[in-house]
Amino acid sequence: MTLEVGVLGYRFMGKAHANAMARLPMFFPDAPEIERSVLVGRDEDALSDAADRLGFSSISTDWAEVVDDVDVFYNLGPNHVHAEPSIAALEAGTPVFCEKPLAPTLADAESMAEAAREAGGDVPAGCAFNYRFVPAIRYAKRLLDDGELGEIRHVRGRYLQDWLVDPEAPWSWRNDEEMAGSGALGDLGAHTVDLLRFLVGDDDLAGEIERVSGHLQTFVDERPVEGETPEESRGDGNAVETRPVTVDDAYSAQLAYEHGAMGTIEATRAATGHKNDHTIEIHGSEGSLRFSLERLNELEVLRSDDNRGYETILVTDEDDPYVDHWWPPGHVLGWEHTFVHENYEFLSAVAEGREFAPNFEDGLAAQRVLAAIEESDDRGEWVGLE
Amino acid sequence: MTLEVGVLGYRFMGKAHANAMARLPMFFPDAPEIERSVLVGRDEDALSDAADRLGFSSISTDWAEVVDDVDVFYNLGPNHVHAEPSIAALEAGTPVFCEKPLAPTLADAESMAEAAREAGGDVPAGCAFNYRFVPAIRYAKRLLDDGELGEIRHVRGRYLQDWLVDPEAPWSWRNDEEMAGSGALGDLGAHTVDLLRFLVGDDDLAGEIERVSGHLQTFVDERPVEGETPEESRGDGNAVETRPVTVDDAYSAQLAYEHGAMGTIEATRAATGHKNDHTIEIHGSEGSLRFSLERLNELEVLRSDDNRGYETILVTDEDDPYVDHWWPPGHVLGWEHTFVHENYEFLSAVAEGREFAPNFEDGLAAQRVLAAIEESDDRGEWVGLE
Amino acid sequence: MTLEVGVLGYRFMGKAHANAMARLPMFFPDAPEIERSVLVGRDEDALSDAADRLGFSSISTDWAEVVDDVDVFYNLGPNHVHAEPSIAALEAGTPVFCEKPLAPTLADAESMAEAAREAGGDVPAGCAFNYRFVPAIRYAKRLLDDGELGEIRHVRGRYLQDWLVDPEAPWSWRNDEEMAGSGALGDLGAHTVDLLRFLVGDDDLAGEIERVSGHLQTFVDERPVEGETPEESRGDGNAVETRPVTVDDAYSAQLAYEHGAMGTIEATRAATGHKNDHTIEIHGSEGSLRFSLERLNELEVLRSDDNRGYETILVTDEDDPYVDHWWPPGHVLGWEHTFVHENYEFLSAVAEGREFAPNFEDGLAAQRVLAAIEESDDRGEWVGLE
Amino acid sequence: MTLEVGVLGYRFMGKAHANAMARLPMFFPDAPEIERSVLVGRDEDALSDAADRLGFSSISTDWAEVVDDVDVFYNLGPNHVHAEPSIAALEAGTPVFCEKPLAPTLADAESMAEAAREAGGDVPAGCAFNYRFVPAIRYAKRLLDDGELGEIRHVRGRYLQDWLVDPEAPWSWRNDEEMAGSGALGDLGAHTVDLLRFLVGDDDLAGEIERVSGHLQTFVDERPVEGETPEESRGDGNAVETRPVTVDDAYSAQLAYEHGAMGTIEATRAATGHKNDHTIEIHGSEGSLRFSLERLNELEVLRSDDNRGYETILVTDEDDPYVDHWWPPGHVLGWEHTFVHENYEFLSAVAEGREFAPNFEDGLAAQRVLAAIEESDDRGEWVGLE
Repeated sequence: MTLEVGVLGYRFMGKAHANAMARLPMFFPDAPEIERSVLVGRDEDALSDAADRLGFSSISTDWAEVVDDVDVFYNLGPNHVHAEPSIAALEAGTPVFCEKPLAPTLADAESMAEAAREAGGDVPAGCAFNYRFVPAIRYAKRLLDDGELGEIRHVRGRYLQDWLVDPEAPWSWRNDEEMAGSGALGDLGAHTVDLLRFLVGDDDLAGEIERVSGHLQTFVDERPVEGETPEESRGDGNAVETRPVTVDDAYSAQLAYEHGAMGTIEATRAATGHKNDHTIEIHGSEGSLRFSLERLNELEVLRSDDNRGYETILVTDEDDPYVDHWWPPGHVLGWEHTFVHENYEFLSAVAEGREFAPNFEDGLAAQRVLAAIEESDDRGEWVGLE
Repeated sequence: MTLEVGVLGYRFMGKAHANAMARLPMFFPDAPEIERSVLVGRDEDALSDAADRLGFSSISTDWAEVVDDVDVFYNLGPNHVHAEPSIAALEAGTPVFCEKPLAPTLADAESMAEAAREAGGDVPAGCAFNYRFVPAIRYAKRLLDDGELGEIRHVRGRYLQDWLVDPEAPWSWRNDEEMAGSGALGDLGAHTVDLLRFLVGDDDLAGEIERVSGHLQTFVDERPVEGETPEESRGDGNAVETRPVTVDDAYSAQLAYEHGAMGTIEATRAATGHKNDHTIEIHGSEGSLRFSLERLNELEVLRSDDNRGYETILVTDEDDPYVDHWWPPGHVLGWEHTFVHENYEFLSAVAEGREFAPNFEDGLAAQRVLAAIEESDDRGEWVGLE
Repeated sequence: MTLEVGVLGYRFMGKAHANAMARLPMFFPDAPEIERSVLVGRDEDALSDAADRLGFSSISTDWAEVVDDVDVFYNLGPNHVHAEPSIAALEAGTPVFCEKPLAPTLADAESMAEAAREAGGDVPAGCAFNYRFVPAIRYAKRLLDDGELGEIRHVRGRYLQDWLVDPEAPWSWRNDEEMAGSGALGDLGAHTVDLLRFLVGDDDLAGEIERVSGHLQTFVDERPVEGETPEESRGDGNAVETRPVTVDDAYSAQLAYEHGAMGTIEATRAATGHKNDHTIEIHGSEGSLRFSLERLNELEVLRSDDNRGYETILVTDEDDPYVDHWWPPGHVLGWEHTFVHENYEFLSAVAEGREFAPNFEDGLAAQRVLAAIEESDDRGEWVGLE
Repeated sequence: MTLEVGVLGYRFMGKAHANAMARLPMFFPDAPEIERSVLVGRDEDALSDAADRLGFSSISTDWAEVVDDVDVFYNLGPNHVHAEPSIAALEAGTPVFCEKPLAPTLADAESMAEAAREAGGDVPAGCAFNYRFVPAIRYAKRLLDDGELGEIRHVRGRYLQDWLVDPEAPWSWRNDEEMAGSGALGDLGAHTVDLLRFLVGDDDLAGEIERVSGHLQTFVDERPVEGETPEESRGDGNAVETRPVTVDDAYSAQLAYEHGAMGTIEATRAATGHKNDHTIEIHGSEGSLRFSLERLNELEVLRSDDNRGYETILVTDEDDPYVDHWWPPGHVLGWEHTFVHENYEFLSAVAEGREFAPNFEDGLAAQRVLAAIEESDDRGEWVGLE
């Protein structure tokens, strides 16, 4: 049986997932057979071009028709389009793979998780936190699960970008609270929160995040509409048309964990010189580890039994997670491979009618942390979860 | 004229400063002439040995006599001994160089700063934040003051050690609130706060820290008395004698700066594998920089005009701060050189009867931040400074 | 028009090129249309499986038939199978893309280059030195061509692997002089020599390599036949069946360049802990650069006008070579992307009937250097090239 | 008894050793007592100033008188002044500590070693290869001696500086064959050769270097006399006065070791951006290690039993070599500490009338390798070492 996949969204994420699906047969021969069936969007011309390039058989401008029709529905649209189509698909019994953050608001995320619960365990509802599928992160997870780092004391996560450091960088939907929900917090912080939940959130590690203290900041309050010529170049005295930035450029937070661990996390779009620099650091009573997305083939590990200093492990050996599907040791993978791995896992779960993680509950859990961070920033005090 | 220097404390800091003073004539020939005159402590035998080894002419067990007698008084004792002798010295018109943190309590620090104010500008009262005197930090300061990083957006500081990760590590005065005031917060956090004040605290950079949100944690509540044999080894069924740990093992904090910059800082004595790892990171609208104490000859700099990525600068060129006093380019300095530099600057200020920075006001300012962090942790909310 | 591609070889290189071809339509929409038409090998079953997995329409066990039939012929077989089919294809006017090293012997390489010359410029004969197509290497090439490093003084290249460090690692065709020509020298050294030729070989840079001094070494003289149980495990007193290693495990060489630059290069299969560590370093009168294949998204550059230290450039910006075809800044590429780039360039050259570099002349030129290194090792003296 | 030390040379090396001696009492209390007694040189005024600054009791312009008079003689003059005074001292039964390289010519080095042999084992004749006394190097030596790296396969050493990359950098005695013997080869290569001899030269490791292939190069043939104004600035049409460069700006060499290991070593004064970058890399059948002088507190170690990747060890723990004399873990040492360690060891040997290593035999052995490299370069072929 071939799974017909419908995909809403054909920009950055559309390309990342289409590529991932296209690569499965050669590298993951035991993945279910799929067809990139329908590409969904609003602008028919752009859609048609994209479908051609990304290998879809057809297009549709009406997601409502699609969600029922296909075997799997991918929701890769902007955050404010996550809830409605995903819920509709789940109500139709169609498995859903939705990009992160799960939704722009906690209420939406809750509805989505509720829909997933009702659809049942054999209708996977995945939230596409792709960084869980970096081989080095999986390797780290193994170490943590084996207790090699001991009791968790500290976690640290930061996600640094710089594309909004320039006040003249144009306004986009990502700067708008209605459409995006939040800024760096939701876009980047969601990744960090999910990765930390994945890595240390188990009860025999750090457990749940109990309370948070948050801090949000917007450095540039309004931005020019895309394509506007700056006044200096025009010299006609007319002001540039701008739109207000209603989300955060950066956030930071402190975390207090159930079993006593502490955390600091942050993200920004104003870290000059950093393009996509997501780092995770963990200290346990028996060891420490560090990971950086810009060197995603590497994991720095310190186990106090074996090491005095960090050991830089190139996670490309044959028995490292997912690596046997690719190339010999030392032949490094790239960012996009995380999408192949998550598509493989998600589609296999769909084919076998079983649960997939991270699911909508995970998406919701991350959202709760983000919402608590925002609330804490508003109230100027620590906010508990639950 | 030779300055007679009296020094209270002969352990780690006593050795670091005695060494620094001993090295001035050869490397800083324009430093004032000094005599390591009196070494002050309680245990006469240990004191006598230390005086011999550290090159002091005499010893005393009564600081009250010394502070009046000498030309300069160094207070290198435990935190709870900072206030009284320092104030007495200043009241006697004797310049004081006091180790950090300035005092175990904010009240003490305020009294000390008050005493310094009353002693007047020609009686230097220095607080020995030695990391201001790392050549790479001075170099960073130049860049910041020249506006090369633009407007400050983010600061980040962390100070990681691991000597208390083991629950069996013995109790010491550093675990006691009475004597130490606080734990990682005062001992390590004081350095971080001062370095950040030094680097970005000027009004044309980030300005003052306006408010903080703090988090303190003690991972191990009681520790064995030094020299106690663990029960396993004894097997006599008697419990090991322990003492309570009344200070933090680790702290973290978020900072909100006057001009909009955000910060996260933290320190811990439980970061497995990290010995003395103090790192500072700063992002401005025009550039970024990174510094690590364990590679203190290096500064990583990114100026968006000249660089796309961080440039690793070995700050050992002839025209780098203090370097002309030492060795040719590429011949790296160590941790202890920071003490030589600060002693040179402090003693020169004494000889010339002029102000020295960092002074007791700086010590107090750092203390205020630390106290606000503690208060914030107690109250579970952000705390304003002033 | 769709180019029908015939490919000899279906293991490591077969997979790398098949994957590359498969990815062109989505990422390089202006690439010529191709069909993975015939997969060529000896074992029909294995071949059939591979064709299925790698997306080939048909299989053949007779390359002689294929070379005439297809529009393009890829020769990805072991070194001793490079010459005959490649020459046959060229004689049939079929463009050839041949894996490196061009041939096991200099004589073979010369015949192949001769065949390419006779086929003419509109029948591209490419030698698949894929590392020329790393974006960071292209970026380095731009800097060098723009004279940003000044006059070349030093080059350094090393290629470290460790898969033969264990004396029990089984014998393979790569250990056999007849089939492989040489060991680390041909397999790894060919890459280094070609990269250096590419980067600094132009006449206004270092120019040609004038003479070399070589050193070859075999650390383990014989190896067990694959699948042999070690004597210890069997305990039957029978010796393990072994075969002699007739190629080098490692080589090193010194290079003297036309315009005065010096070089040292080396490769080994016995560098414990190194999997695929190919590094290049270049010092010029105005700057220096460093590249490491295991961090292939990065280039370390020092330009004495702008830098004091090396700047670590993440070569993933939109205007970096090939990057606009892929992902946003900071989303790193992997090893396999070099194959996509070289396939794009090669197939475009085929479609347009124009030259492609690196070609068989480049393959031959590299071979001459390798042969001179071997000869130098034999004779114990420097050997001139031409 | 106080050892009276006479020192010839008061520039860079004079300062480094005077500082080292000055620091012994505080940090190495069991070192013999010494007096910096006589400073020897030619220019009385400069000498007098230096003696004052460096803490010497008296000066002399006649080494011949001094060598007999003092208890220990340090020869820190230019290379061409190494032989005569050192031999005279040894003939007078005075222990000698001579800077490296031992002599400008092999003949001189042989005479010096002969003199040392005749003086006997209780008159230490040390060659000041200070890098043997880096704690991280000693730590590496322990690992190697314990067999943790297994059989040695590869060594690599390079020493990169850039102070002669500028053709206008002025001529000095270091550019003159008469005075210096050789250029980068003797000045820098001597360090590399000695370190490798120290680390792997034992018979149960790599053993002796059996033969070498060398390559010397001079990039700039003549240099302006110090203080000459460049013609451009003068504009008077007179040529700048220059002197010929008669030594190498850079060398490289390949090494073949007694037990099969291979090596490549090189040094240059034209590696743009590198100030004092001496790196050593070793691969054995069981592990690998890397060291860099610009990060001299660190050692990168890979032991295949415990590690997959290199572990960055900060060699500042209490039980690391020499470290207990200094500061707590993580408080890094500098370049100059190597001199303190070697002075401690050398002066202790003097006081106890026992052998010190590295001695004149080690200096001679290094010289033989350097001479063979030069000879190999001349003859264009490999040259055997005895």
